[in-house]
Amino acid sequence: MTDQAILLAPPLNPPQRVLLGPGPSDVPPRVLAALAAPTIGHLDPVYLKIMDETRAMLRAVFRTKNELTMAVSGTGSAGMEAAIVNLVEPGDEMIVCVNGVFGTRMRDVAQRAGATVHSIEAEWGRTIDPQQVADALKAHPKTKLLGIVHAETSTGAHQPLEEISDLVHDFGALLVVDAVTSLGGVELKVDDWKIDACYSGTQKCLSCPPGLAPLTFSPAAVEAMDRRKTKVQSWYLDASMLRQYWGAERVYHHTAPINMTYALHESLRVVLEEGLEARIARHTHNHKALRAGLEALGLKYVPEHSLTTLNAIHSPAGVDEAKVRKRLLEDYGIEIGAGLGPFKGKAMRIGLMGSSSTKRNVTLVLAALETVLAGEGVAVGRGEAIAAAERMYASQR
Amino acid sequence: MTDQAILLAPPLNPPQRVLLGPGPSDVPPRVLAALAAPTIGHLDPVYLKIMDETRAMLRAVFRTKNELTMAVSGTGSAGMEAAIVNLVEPGDEMIVCVNGVFGTRMRDVAQRAGATVHSIEAEWGRTIDPQQVADALKAHPKTKLLGIVHAETSTGAHQPLEEISDLVHDFGALLVVDAVTSLGGVELKVDDWKIDACYSGTQKCLSCPPGLAPLTFSPAAVEAMDRRKTKVQSWYLDASMLRQYWGAERVYHHTAPINMTYALHESLRVVLEEGLEARIARHTHNHKALRAGLEALGLKYVPEHSLTTLNAIHSPAGVDEAKVRKRLLEDYGIEIGAGLGPFKGKAMRIGLMGSSSTKRNVTLVLAALETVLAGEGVAVGRGEAIAAAERMYASQR
Repeated sequence: MTDQAILLAPPLNPPQRVLLGPGPSDVPPRVLAALAAPTIGHLDPVYLKIMDETRAMLRAVFRTKNELTMAVSGTGSAGMEAAIVNLVEPGDEMIVCVNGVFGTRMRDVAQRAGATVHSIEAEWGRTIDPQQVADALKAHPKTKLLGIVHAETSTGAHQPLEEISDLVHDFGALLVVDAVTSLGGVELKVDDWKIDACYSGTQKCLSCPPGLAPLTFSPAAVEAMDRRKTKVQSWYLDASMLRQYWGAERVYHHTAPINMTYALHESLRVVLEEGLEARIARHTHNHKALRAGLEALGLKYVPEHSLTTLNAIHSPAGVDEAKVRKRLLEDYGIEIGAGLGPFKGKAMRIGLMGSSSTKRNVTLVLAALETVLAGEGVAVGRGEAIAAAERMYASQR
Repeated sequence: MTDQAILLAPPLNPPQRVLLGPGPSDVPPRVLAALAAPTIGHLDPVYLKIMDETRAMLRAVFRTKNELTMAVSGTGSAGMEAAIVNLVEPGDEMIVCVNGVFGTRMRDVAQRAGATVHSIEAEWGRTIDPQQVADALKAHPKTKLLGIVHAETSTGAHQPLEEISDLVHDFGALLVVDAVTSLGGVELKVDDWKIDACYSGTQKCLSCPPGLAPLTFSPAAVEAMDRRKTKVQSWYLDASMLRQYWGAERVYHHTAPINMTYALHESLRVVLEEGLEARIARHTHNHKALRAGLEALGLKYVPEHSLTTLNAIHSPAGVDEAKVRKRLLEDYGIEIGAGLGPFKGKAMRIGLMGSSSTKRNVTLVLAALETVLAGEGVAVGRGEAIAAAERMYASQR
């Protein structure tokens, strides 16, 4: 037996989980089937048509007419980096709103791109107040752009954007929005809200496997890029070249992740077949029922203003949240997420995103949580969570 | 009908091509099946085990013991960027060998990372002479690293590395190697050849869909990263964080492309089941047969020293190569590649990579080319190409 044969791993055989963490969410069988369609070339006319259709559907889901709308060949964080490095030149001033992991990450990305970053901070779990934005813009009159997270996956906070967008545009700056955990699940209107750069991931409310980052730039953002004096620091994410591949020129840049594009294409078809409004309403209904059930279990939400797609709850006093998550995974095959940052070991995050947002999953996770928490000595009224969720479903009919 | 419904694209239905271009190559059904396995979480214990197995198999294929061996969440060019931005700090001096598209790209990436780049150039299609490297190192005594392309996909040139590696290491610099079109198809020995950073793509000789970039760093490269005074300019590609996710710490960095990792895992199993030596020999046999056939058709190779995985040939005088490629695609479903740079419109590139490197494909493409070239008025002896290939196969038995 050679060394190579010894190193040969067994065939993989991943289990069928119920994905109720902060992403990935459950992927519909038809999206997995599209993923496995035959690979073709990245310059094949058939593939170029699939790219065109994908960007048209992305525009519909982003609610934008932006010409420069595409899928970056990386996960959501690559979308964040692409948005920032294309708009920031060394020495540019940027305000970043920080109230969780992803605002913190955006600040780091902007600093690495050479921006002078001014932070607006809010306690994790709280949202950013428009007055803070007004004050920061006044204090930093050279601000070129402001970045903010619409759906803070680390805390479950849902950030209102319209008033902040008005402030930023009245000031003459550009608005960059992280919509990783909102696109396709929470109301998001890129054009109406005048967002200049908006990025997301495929593995959250679009219920596609992770690997691509939907990204759209407004005409004003494109103009800002066209005025750059320096090259974008990342060759891989340079939108001036990416747009020549996604656009009519079809200039080869890099080999696109062909099969991931198939999957995104199919997941966007799923979204548009359901309809955006119906899909957003479904996320709201299931969230309200889950929330009623969680509160019946005595659990408290972390954020003041919760997303419908992600439910961050404080762990009950004296309960080891890692043990709860382990039981859910091992006994039920249910994945939920841990707390992050100041909530590490102190919170749990239950996602209801895309295909994972169903009455079946709400019922299952509440029933399983009730059993697991009871096993941990938490006083729960048996059956009350499901009953509370059911009453909430009934009230929404 | 709403706007959204109007934008709904038809289901995708990509054809079964024969992929004989510069990548992607044909993906085996078992790899596509692995790609479509159920998505699980990026911190799921089952997924973490798949990551461990994947990096162990990557080490076997790279022929290295390097601890820091992983798959970057992007295509091959992201692997190039990751190798460079982690090793270069602003002001560092780097020598880049340029004899095609990918050397040119590496220079661009290094400059964007703030390196002072000294180029060694060779005519496209030629390889870099060790004497040029010796001279450049002498001329630039502060050189920190030298970058070179092992398999120049744009010209088909196969670059010998061992002598150059000795020069670079005797000098005390680091060696960065682009192995996008060689890993898993052409002899490549990362440890024996003392390569400090080596990256590839999944869609070439590994016959996995595009979307991940295998990357390995030597202990010396890791030490150089540990000595950095500045942060890596790319958050997404920062190896100091990526290694905490791929390593025992399992610190969340970004959501890995789960299903693409499944596919890479399976494609590495395919490679190791065949065995690296047998696989490299298969590429050699099929290349020699194709070459005999192409030369029987009167076609001339672009590079002096051709890769076995990619065959770049001059277009016959007076023949529109775009028309030839179009006929191959439309009449036979065969993809071959166009010329790039100075060879645009003047050369064609026929890949025989991974699963695409078969006697069946050699026979098919020669037979189809003969017909298409005859249709374009090229004087070809009918049947001679296949006969020449067959004689070459017989001589190799």
